[in-house]
Amino acid sequence: MSVIPAPAIVRGFRFAGVSAGLKHEVGAKDLGLIVSDAPANVAAVFSANRVKAAPVYVTMDRIRGGRLQALVANSGCANSFTGKPGLKLARDSCTIVAKEIGCAPELIAPSSTGVIGHLFDLQKFGAGVREAARQLREDGLEDFARSVMTTDTHPKIASTSIRMGGANITIAGVAKGSGMISPKMATMLAYLVTDAAVSAAQLRVALKAALPHSFNAITVDGDMSTNDSVILMASGAAGNRAPSRKDLDAFNRGVAEVSAHLARELVRDGEGATKLVTVEVRGAKSSADAERCARQIANSPLVKTAFFGCDPNVGRILMAAGSSGAIVESDRLLLSIGGVKVAARGALLVDALPLAAEKMREREFIVNLDLKLGAATATILTCDLSYDYVKINAEYTT
Amino acid sequence: MSVIPAPAIVRGFRFAGVSAGLKHEVGAKDLGLIVSDAPANVAAVFSANRVKAAPVYVTMDRIRGGRLQALVANSGCANSFTGKPGLKLARDSCTIVAKEIGCAPELIAPSSTGVIGHLFDLQKFGAGVREAARQLREDGLEDFARSVMTTDTHPKIASTSIRMGGANITIAGVAKGSGMISPKMATMLAYLVTDAAVSAAQLRVALKAALPHSFNAITVDGDMSTNDSVILMASGAAGNRAPSRKDLDAFNRGVAEVSAHLARELVRDGEGATKLVTVEVRGAKSSADAERCARQIANSPLVKTAFFGCDPNVGRILMAAGSSGAIVESDRLLLSIGGVKVAARGALLVDALPLAAEKMREREFIVNLDLKLGAATATILTCDLSYDYVKINAEYTT
Repeated sequence: MSVIPAPAIVRGFRFAGVSAGLKHEVGAKDLGLIVSDAPANVAAVFSANRVKAAPVYVTMDRIRGGRLQALVANSGCANSFTGKPGLKLARDSCTIVAKEIGCAPELIAPSSTGVIGHLFDLQKFGAGVREAARQLREDGLEDFARSVMTTDTHPKIASTSIRMGGANITIAGVAKGSGMISPKMATMLAYLVTDAAVSAAQLRVALKAALPHSFNAITVDGDMSTNDSVILMASGAAGNRAPSRKDLDAFNRGVAEVSAHLARELVRDGEGATKLVTVEVRGAKSSADAERCARQIANSPLVKTAFFGCDPNVGRILMAAGSSGAIVESDRLLLSIGGVKVAARGALLVDALPLAAEKMREREFIVNLDLKLGAATATILTCDLSYDYVKINAEYTT
Repeated sequence: MSVIPAPAIVRGFRFAGVSAGLKHEVGAKDLGLIVSDAPANVAAVFSANRVKAAPVYVTMDRIRGGRLQALVANSGCANSFTGKPGLKLARDSCTIVAKEIGCAPELIAPSSTGVIGHLFDLQKFGAGVREAARQLREDGLEDFARSVMTTDTHPKIASTSIRMGGANITIAGVAKGSGMISPKMATMLAYLVTDAAVSAAQLRVALKAALPHSFNAITVDGDMSTNDSVILMASGAAGNRAPSRKDLDAFNRGVAEVSAHLARELVRDGEGATKLVTVEVRGAKSSADAERCARQIANSPLVKTAFFGCDPNVGRILMAAGSSGAIVESDRLLLSIGGVKVAARGALLVDALPLAAEKMREREFIVNLDLKLGAATATILTCDLSYDYVKINAEYTT
């Protein structure tokens, strides 16, 4: 199986992305549709933020039965912290879509991203939906991907095909970032579609297995949005037989790999990011310790600015490890940056630092911390903290 | 009682700060001494980081008996992550001081700040100690304050005087920041001295009471250093009678106010900071919730860049509140920025935003979030996240 960074035809689904005038930038795509020919099976996970956006509540409610026919997404307005009017708006927006494509409103899920605290214009939204419905195409996934972008610099798309139950099935996905990205399933928007005939329960298993190594293993700024969702829909149009255990293993791997690819792209396109850094903690006493430690390193502003400055700052990495709450013994651990050992058994390897600094000039490198205390591991993808992060976030308006 | 941002004479103590050549900048002060005429009573708190620096371990050991005669501090080298050679160096540096001032090495505590992973030159250090010993003066506190500065732009000093047990007593303190500043008693270096005759146990009570509203209530970047310490020494030279309960209340208040003043100065001088922001959470269900919520807001890079950009970004503040783990009900809470109500009962007060943005242009303002769920409160001081934060930390060398 190989994942490609491109869209694919996923039988049973059509897609569109249009400009409805919800974003400030004139002509920018800001409204997208994913429509299944018939009700599809669905599984999803949502933001762990206590303050969730209206469309998240509506979607949580509508996917409860495991069936969904269409998804309408918009950028430019998050419809979050909008109270009852926001909930009504989210439901009304689905009703417009339902009329347009001819199905029950309860089979439609809304999804929004953008500025918090405002409602969008339902008139403009409706006109956008009608235009999007006209433009629905089997090969419209990239248009859809563009319609959910905010500070993303490019659309993120991935797809793969596998053989399963006597048929070739395809899994494709798109995601948008690129700020307020942190773990705890509170990361971003991602939409995955497949033509495989798999049940909602099977989709839930696949999604749950994919998360820890994809959307829950990334961070840009440690912040958690109110809107973030990952939604996985299956049309069944590939016509495969009921999947065997082995088929499901392959399917799960496919979902995991498409998810991991998209998650990686989200970090690479993190706000102001110039580098993709994999923080790998090994030898921790427990999984919780490994994860705490990796996340603290990956989120530390001091570590991230050192990444930006190509500074192999062992002190800051160990400071973060030590402050994570994980058990750390500084005279046992081993630290390498870009494959270059920079600290071992309580001592800094000063002579290695110039080579480590050299490795940090690359667009991608690995920080590997072996605590030498146990067998638990954790990996978190992060990016550096640059001037542009500050610029993007100080100038982005309310 | 009034706290002034200036040094004071604290009977029984002499101070010095000299250049020993430990910092890169030629001529910059980097070695300081605080010497008591006789063994002083002492209390201290240290970094909660699992990875502590050698001088922290040595100081923890030496203050155990509640007595200390001198303190030697240096900047330019943290003597952290330096293993056994680091411990030996910390002890040897005290032995040099002991010979110079004529007391037992066990009555001397070392304190270091600067780059992690390196040892300092004991020869240079020794020459610096001899010079500092020559320069010891009753009015040398500002020189000492300068000797512990790293990225600080100016020394932080505060003092106050109170009447207690029939004598006028003075409390003075200095602190250094200004990165790796976060709560959990892992914030920075601060040294407080008083001429009051109070026991080590009484000092511990005063320090413990002062922390939650001073050094533990501030954050610059959420990072926690390996070296941070607050040390409070009392010479007893003021000659007051054994303090009454009321005297101790006054003394504790004095320690708390000097600490709060210094803590505030640390945030104001945070790396790249242009604004001092007080994040006040009220009406939380529990104290833990209030604190989690305030800290999450105060540490969020998205919130802090919005502070820098004078953007009354209600969405980011609520996003942070919601992701803190605290119980938050978005349709009940009340949010004001700079005294301007910007959100209430689930709705953004759009008309108020321009005035709130105006208030954010000031050097200091308050963010007040009332969760309307209970009676618990928490206050954290923070600063904005600016281009200069990135510049300072991307360019500061290992």
